[in-house]
Amino acid sequence: MLINCVAYHNGQKLADLQQEDIHDYLQRPDTFVWVALRDPEPAELDAMAAQFELHELAVEDARNGHQRPKLEEYGEVLFCVLQTLEPTESGELRVGEVDLFVGPNFVLSIRNDTRKGFVSVRDRCEHEPELLQIGAGFVFYALIDAVVDRYFAVMHQLEDELDELEERLFSRKSSARRNIEDLYALKRKLVTVSHAVVPLHEAVGRLHGGRVPRVCGGLQNYYRDVDDHLARIIRSLESQRDMLSTAIQVNLAMISLDDSSVSKKLAAYAALFAVPTMIAGIYGMNFDNMPELKSSDGYPLTLAIMLVLDVLLWWRFKKVGWL
Amino acid sequence: MLINCVAYHNGQKLADLQQEDIHDYLQRPDTFVWVALRDPEPAELDAMAAQFELHELAVEDARNGHQRPKLEEYGEVLFCVLQTLEPTESGELRVGEVDLFVGPNFVLSIRNDTRKGFVSVRDRCEHEPELLQIGAGFVFYALIDAVVDRYFAVMHQLEDELDELEERLFSRKSSARRNIEDLYALKRKLVTVSHAVVPLHEAVGRLHGGRVPRVCGGLQNYYRDVDDHLARIIRSLESQRDMLSTAIQVNLAMISLDDSSVSKKLAAYAALFAVPTMIAGIYGMNFDNMPELKSSDGYPLTLAIMLVLDVLLWWRFKKVGWL
Amino acid sequence: MLINCVAYHNGQKLADLQQEDIHDYLQRPDTFVWVALRDPEPAELDAMAAQFELHELAVEDARNGHQRPKLEEYGEVLFCVLQTLEPTESGELRVGEVDLFVGPNFVLSIRNDTRKGFVSVRDRCEHEPELLQIGAGFVFYALIDAVVDRYFAVMHQLEDELDELEERLFSRKSSARRNIEDLYALKRKLVTVSHAVVPLHEAVGRLHGGRVPRVCGGLQNYYRDVDDHLARIIRSLESQRDMLSTAIQVNLAMISLDDSSVSKKLAAYAALFAVPTMIAGIYGMNFDNMPELKSSDGYPLTLAIMLVLDVLLWWRFKKVGWL
Amino acid sequence: MLINCVAYHNGQKLADLQQEDIHDYLQRPDTFVWVALRDPEPAELDAMAAQFELHELAVEDARNGHQRPKLEEYGEVLFCVLQTLEPTESGELRVGEVDLFVGPNFVLSIRNDTRKGFVSVRDRCEHEPELLQIGAGFVFYALIDAVVDRYFAVMHQLEDELDELEERLFSRKSSARRNIEDLYALKRKLVTVSHAVVPLHEAVGRLHGGRVPRVCGGLQNYYRDVDDHLARIIRSLESQRDMLSTAIQVNLAMISLDDSSVSKKLAAYAALFAVPTMIAGIYGMNFDNMPELKSSDGYPLTLAIMLVLDVLLWWRFKKVGWL
Amino acid sequence: MLINCVAYHNGQKLADLQQEDIHDYLQRPDTFVWVALRDPEPAELDAMAAQFELHELAVEDARNGHQRPKLEEYGEVLFCVLQTLEPTESGELRVGEVDLFVGPNFVLSIRNDTRKGFVSVRDRCEHEPELLQIGAGFVFYALIDAVVDRYFAVMHQLEDELDELEERLFSRKSSARRNIEDLYALKRKLVTVSHAVVPLHEAVGRLHGGRVPRVCGGLQNYYRDVDDHLARIIRSLESQRDMLSTAIQVNLAMISLDDSSVSKKLAAYAALFAVPTMIAGIYGMNFDNMPELKSSDGYPLTLAIMLVLDVLLWWRFKKVGWL
Repeated sequence: MLINCVAYHNGQKLADLQQEDIHDYLQRPDTFVWVALRDPEPAELDAMAAQFELHELAVEDARNGHQRPKLEEYGEVLFCVLQTLEPTESGELRVGEVDLFVGPNFVLSIRNDTRKGFVSVRDRCEHEPELLQIGAGFVFYALIDAVVDRYFAVMHQLEDELDELEERLFSRKSSARRNIEDLYALKRKLVTVSHAVVPLHEAVGRLHGGRVPRVCGGLQNYYRDVDDHLARIIRSLESQRDMLSTAIQVNLAMISLDDSSVSKKLAAYAALFAVPTMIAGIYGMNFDNMPELKSSDGYPLTLAIMLVLDVLLWWRFKKVGWL
Repeated sequence: MLINCVAYHNGQKLADLQQEDIHDYLQRPDTFVWVALRDPEPAELDAMAAQFELHELAVEDARNGHQRPKLEEYGEVLFCVLQTLEPTESGELRVGEVDLFVGPNFVLSIRNDTRKGFVSVRDRCEHEPELLQIGAGFVFYALIDAVVDRYFAVMHQLEDELDELEERLFSRKSSARRNIEDLYALKRKLVTVSHAVVPLHEAVGRLHGGRVPRVCGGLQNYYRDVDDHLARIIRSLESQRDMLSTAIQVNLAMISLDDSSVSKKLAAYAALFAVPTMIAGIYGMNFDNMPELKSSDGYPLTLAIMLVLDVLLWWRFKKVGWL
Repeated sequence: MLINCVAYHNGQKLADLQQEDIHDYLQRPDTFVWVALRDPEPAELDAMAAQFELHELAVEDARNGHQRPKLEEYGEVLFCVLQTLEPTESGELRVGEVDLFVGPNFVLSIRNDTRKGFVSVRDRCEHEPELLQIGAGFVFYALIDAVVDRYFAVMHQLEDELDELEERLFSRKSSARRNIEDLYALKRKLVTVSHAVVPLHEAVGRLHGGRVPRVCGGLQNYYRDVDDHLARIIRSLESQRDMLSTAIQVNLAMISLDDSSVSKKLAAYAALFAVPTMIAGIYGMNFDNMPELKSSDGYPLTLAIMLVLDVLLWWRFKKVGWL
Repeated sequence: MLINCVAYHNGQKLADLQQEDIHDYLQRPDTFVWVALRDPEPAELDAMAAQFELHELAVEDARNGHQRPKLEEYGEVLFCVLQTLEPTESGELRVGEVDLFVGPNFVLSIRNDTRKGFVSVRDRCEHEPELLQIGAGFVFYALIDAVVDRYFAVMHQLEDELDELEERLFSRKSSARRNIEDLYALKRKLVTVSHAVVPLHEAVGRLHGGRVPRVCGGLQNYYRDVDDHLARIIRSLESQRDMLSTAIQVNLAMISLDDSSVSKKLAAYAALFAVPTMIAGIYGMNFDNMPELKSSDGYPLTLAIMLVLDVLLWWRFKKVGWL
Repeated sequence: MLINCVAYHNGQKLADLQQEDIHDYLQRPDTFVWVALRDPEPAELDAMAAQFELHELAVEDARNGHQRPKLEEYGEVLFCVLQTLEPTESGELRVGEVDLFVGPNFVLSIRNDTRKGFVSVRDRCEHEPELLQIGAGFVFYALIDAVVDRYFAVMHQLEDELDELEERLFSRKSSARRNIEDLYALKRKLVTVSHAVVPLHEAVGRLHGGRVPRVCGGLQNYYRDVDDHLARIIRSLESQRDMLSTAIQVNLAMISLDDSSVSKKLAAYAALFAVPTMIAGIYGMNFDNMPELKSSDGYPLTLAIMLVLDVLLWWRFKKVGWL
């Protein structure tokens, strides 16, 4: 679906274009065209590929989707794949894809499986004509920056999940089984995020510093800023990975500990029952000559002894922490 | 076994050759020869080595097989080893080998222990004469691309296996023993795939970017595309490794958890039996003076007390989750 | 809040400035201005940004805070972010931030969420006019050095915590549950410190060695010294990480060991009760013809046998370490 | 012990030399000397050092032995240390050492603690005079190649051991204790092999590619071949390491699983005994008024109830897999 | 404390100097001064710093101590920090420090917290005047070499400790608790050694190969030799780390195994007691009509049945390895 197709001249919006006029406007000096597609049909994509003369291999990647984030140069044209991450209601992460084709005088953005659009980026750009004037390189930056900014929200959510899990881990009330499941699910999400972020970081690193694609020239501070954001996310990912794997070990220790405390309780209660049972067994023997049995105080005395022994045992088990 | 031996001129098929004519055709300008062998006898291999003047060390590697994937330059001739991965009926991965000799005007492909052939690659090439015209470098790309494409199917299968395992891991019905066996088997397969992919990725990296073997010149975008596919597979492998080792830990935790719940059940049931047994023991004592024994309601009352105590215990154990 | 705003000429304090005079003094030769802010309002920050003509992206980072430590060059101006670490009463680590803007003739330091100030750095600098004379580059060094020096105190605290934990780990008296919680908390702190230190080390590495920002010229020995301190902290962090993960494994082993010793005790005591109970059961049988029951010594003899068997068992269990 | 001392001229054997003639032959053009020592006495070594004018530090290393594999250049002379690995009867790996001194016109090989010699290498070389003619560099290659080839046999043995261990791991019959011991022993062997292989790989890497010692010139394809073999061994080592550490975890899981199944059996059998014991206890009570006791069918009925309850329990435990 | 202060001319000892004469001798051609201090007072250090005109930052490091090993160039002067490792009686490792200042014509060595001195190094040097003649660079080498040589003794001790631990690990007699403690202590020592060795290896790497400090010129073979020793120690450290972490896992498995065997014994013995107790309970019931009770052989027969059942059970448990 075509969302937007606008030509800009010196940072000012010229006109909303029809698809077939794009080629015309690409010829004009100081003009660039910014097109946004969403979940496009193959035909739409082919039409655009024709208008912008895109390389076959890149178009194929855009058509197939499910690429890893990457940045490729086809002559003057950059092809950049980004992944979007959107939390679903069930707490999972939905992975979408944004494909960007950036030439000297155009930007083509293709959004797939991504609910939230990038209209706000266009708005912001149109309100800063002195930056938009720089051209396609700045729009490219603004789009990457928008995608990366949304990663922060995801990271904050994951950090909250880990915090909540840590609390549950040490609480005696929580279910170890549910903890394991949630730890595993969190791990899965971390892997998903790192799939989106790590290759992108690699790619963005080539947009500032040494040799830089021509279209990104003069914007080094901006791309370095994005690079720095990605580095921050990656560091945070690594820490979470690290804490998570420690948390999994801790959870295992907690299960062992719980098991151990059950064993202790079992042992203690078994003893509390075994003592009176043994004594009762003894006075249940049928020897003719058992003087205690004749004594009229024998029975209450025996009961008292049983009680006293059990109270003593109870007190002792309490002291060593078995009960 | 010789499968195919064809000469091409400017991207068009010239003729099916006899083995002994190869040398002739290699002399002609703008002509290249593409030979495909399958599980060749040593003699066949030697004949080809003579026709194409291949380096002794490379031929020895092709003869012995079981090489790691690699790319070696012997003067103008490239020698490339790839591994094929084919799932067997029993769910294992069969490892085959494809050896490619690529010279300025020939491609010799040798398929070993690999059921599925590369006829489709030849078909595709013959239908794109404008690309086939580029010569041996393009055929080389097309063959590597075909091998790598098949890795994706393997990866998808492994991802499905992991997904299914994850589900079983958290299900109360599954057998922990079978889970361990399957986790271990999956691990083995990941190692097998990584043996095929990682060295190949290294090798393909030398076919685009800086200095490139002459025969691959002008095809950088294509080789970069293969490189990117391999990078994607490797990332996916790493994630699977990571998830798998977490899954193994999770499985261990599940076993501990299961053990712990058995201990709790055991302790609870032991208590439920111990109470009436102890009471019965007491009233089984042979003291002369045990007034309860004379009472006509002693017996039913005692049974009632036993029952009430057990019901209370039952309810308590249910509440703390031991039963 | 503005804490200090002073102009220096050849290492000597010239005057305390009003904010609006800063721009004047920046024009004078051999003069530099050193301004210190604390938790500034956005307006204060904007005013400073205007006086020193700071780059928008850097100012935005300073405004938002929660950056990772980094060093960025905007033309002649360095923008450096450092994290401060201050232990709270509850034993946690509070993370603050110091943002430094360093130009050829000015230093602007902004302290956020950090209780302890840097007045001592200013004092030390003013007492060493021959070094202060070098200008902004030396003040920059002195500030980084002060921040890094405070990391050592934090590291010593963490080392002490680990030492204390290690002792508790092997003591039979300690609570395994509390040990796990403390090990996990310590892990968290190590991650926090490494977030502050590792990126800073990277950044400082660019201030000595190869190409160096102009303002840091001639101070290589000093920056190398800071670099070396950071390397020392990082090594120590790594060792602590390493020991900590071993300690977590050890703790798990200790829990298993404890569980195992409970099982042994349980088994031993069960046996001690089972023997007399079984014997008593036998003599509680109601067979008509049980000669022992008639014997007048039957009862004491039986009791004696029970006692002897239990003493033998006790002695045996003691010997194999089950009791 | 001197094993061999031969001079070659243009790839043809000239003569078996006396030790004192070596120096003479070294002066002749197109001639090189190949000496093989085995577990030499210090004096023998010193004599050789004098004949070939070897560097003191290298000779000291050769005298002391127990070096890590390495390659050092002393002027024109290469000093290379290799480790040999030979399986002993008890299944351990015996580590020997081969020290090679290679100059423009000589090769001195010193074999220590190594049963199997390198006569076959000399034979092969003497049968390929066109290669032997290349001189010391080719002999050097042939010796390294022979040592590396023997590593493959060791690797195959270790792979077999791992395969056998994996099978035992999942078999219910095997002894977990023996499995642990064997896993640990295998780990030890992997470390031993990696000590021999990894540093050698590093060293051989310097014999092809960029700058190459003069004596190895023109043999790049050969050294690259050895390098490739070493890379293959290292990859295999890494996989084995990886599988082994997974196997150790699996073994731990198997032990837990076994423990868990014992707990279940214990709980089930305890219940099967507890039910009749409790019922018997009840009818062992001495209440005057227990009508069942008077009934003539009371006893067989009670026995029947006991039996039925136990059969029901048995069936239930079977169903949930506790028995 | 000043230990030694000697001037050398062309490799020959000239004279023992007074501290105040040092400056004089430093002016003479072909002369160098070698001073050794031990645990110096601050004043002694300051005096030396003045004599040799040492850089303030280096002197401060030497004064404070507890540096990580490092090598720093201050103009022509090298400042090198090494750590010494000395086993104490209690089996711990005492960490000392040696600071070396090396200029074109002097060596100043400062030994801290290190019992064993370096007189032997001086002796060896004075007996090899042809090497001592090279000057400060050779003395520097000789001192580093001496420190590194002592690491080997430490490594051998740690290897012995690990060997002994491995044996205990698999012995049924050893105490798992003591094993854990010793494994942990060994881990601590490995970390201590690696703190001393790894940064030193980095530092020494800069003394041979590419650009080398002028004072170390012409001694590349010697420094490479030290570098090689350090590489050997590091490899050995890594292997020990690796084996140790496997050993910790093995120990955990052994504990689980032990626990599991206790569970089995417990279950088996419980069954051996439960059978006669249940039978006795049945014949302790008070039914009027229990024909067996009247039979005169009932009692011995019952005892016989109990015995036979227990013997059968015993035999069965023996067979499955539970007893």
